[in-house]
Amino acid sequence: MKIVFIGSGNVATHMAMALKNAGSHIIQIFSRTDTHAHLLANKVSAEPISDLNNLNREADLYIFSLNDDILPSFIKMMPNTTGIWAHTAGSVPMNLFKERLNRGGYGVIYPLQTFSKERELDFTKISVFVEGDISENETTLLSLARTISDDVKLLDSESRKYLHLAAVFANNFANHMFTLANEVLSERGVAFDALRPLIAETAAKVLEMEPKKAQTGPAIRLDEKVINNHLELIKDDKIKEIYTILSESINRHSS
Amino acid sequence: MKIVFIGSGNVATHMAMALKNAGSHIIQIFSRTDTHAHLLANKVSAEPISDLNNLNREADLYIFSLNDDILPSFIKMMPNTTGIWAHTAGSVPMNLFKERLNRGGYGVIYPLQTFSKERELDFTKISVFVEGDISENETTLLSLARTISDDVKLLDSESRKYLHLAAVFANNFANHMFTLANEVLSERGVAFDALRPLIAETAAKVLEMEPKKAQTGPAIRLDEKVINNHLELIKDDKIKEIYTILSESINRHSS
Repeated sequence: MKIVFIGSGNVATHMAMALKNAGSHIIQIFSRTDTHAHLLANKVSAEPISDLNNLNREADLYIFSLNDDILPSFIKMMPNTTGIWAHTAGSVPMNLFKERLNRGGYGVIYPLQTFSKERELDFTKISVFVEGDISENETTLLSLARTISDDVKLLDSESRKYLHLAAVFANNFANHMFTLANEVLSERGVAFDALRPLIAETAAKVLEMEPKKAQTGPAIRLDEKVINNHLELIKDDKIKEIYTILSESINRHSS
Repeated sequence: MKIVFIGSGNVATHMAMALKNAGSHIIQIFSRTDTHAHLLANKVSAEPISDLNNLNREADLYIFSLNDDILPSFIKMMPNTTGIWAHTAGSVPMNLFKERLNRGGYGVIYPLQTFSKERELDFTKISVFVEGDISENETTLLSLARTISDDVKLLDSESRKYLHLAAVFANNFANHMFTLANEVLSERGVAFDALRPLIAETAAKVLEMEPKKAQTGPAIRLDEKVINNHLELIKDDKIKEIYTILSESINRHSS
């Protein structure tokens, strides 16, 4: 399968490399930033381009992995091509492609994961959610996704929006809690290492239990003395506010 | 070593069982609720008591594992004994024991972990933080802790307070994010399973990286369109508020 990637960020990098390793032919990497296009193109033996006029118009699939903000305006600028157009965004409905109808049809390949350039990932373990405009395209995208992941499912745009929102809580906000924990520790010169076994168990628990059942700590047992002591320790007003609002929310969910 | 446990909650249960398995002799379990005392006492072949008048006064160590709220008033009620008095609380200073001075001295054995009764834990992997009033007691508590954990450190009361606060962010609040994620998904009938690989990676990342460097998502890249779409999806005003305040905080920490 001949694939063009539009975008060269974290998602594009991990997905392009997984697809290449699975035998797909990545023919071009487009990025408006020339050096970015080169960087990923080198990794997957593709041609780097930064001008849409140089786009190969005869690929089987064009994967748009751009910031959700840019995606709509970018699609309007696309030249006519053969092949399916698919994006990788959790929060963007598939219908977006209707604004600039492509004769090859369209779809979505959404990998639900947190990608950082510095960190290698086993793509086979990543859940991938697929959608297609017609069943033929859906089948093509499902088959392709199954070459790189062991966990591929169909999911409609509306459900995908909720999944993406849930992922922001489960990953982005949970990770920010780790950042705030680190900030609290560094105030006292204690290394973040002290928390790592606790964080490992925090995740391990909810791989088996329902998160509500895994909840422990002063907020769930309404231990006001501990809560007040903690609030006294926190100097930053915004972090104090976060502590209060999350403790209240835990309590509200305790019944 | 002859040990009496005051309390029979999650921490007491896991610690008493680990100590018994490591060869310590748990002689009594005190709980004001008779059935609770029996439950744990049966597991560690100890005598259950629910009346302090029946307390064995010649143990080597009395481990107080009670709610932080109850601990101070309880210590005042304690009869005279031999042996060290130690509590397991993260947020309670060791000095608490000064209010009811015990001739055997006092200390702290704080296991930094999230304990649920339904979930078995490998105690050897749990970080334990120890403090003692005099170096002899500190050495005794360190040695005992090392029979059940591979990661035992000395830590003073003031640092322990910060560690406990950090643990609330790293575990309690992170776990609550998983609860809210589950709530978002259930609105659309999507099973929590879809998020489990993401949660596993969320923790795995910060076992190797600094949490600030692991941060991804719409808030860190200032993707206002996604943020606004998410806010529209959330019906509950309190959860909307949490989304907003955490996105702002991620942004504030992004520099």
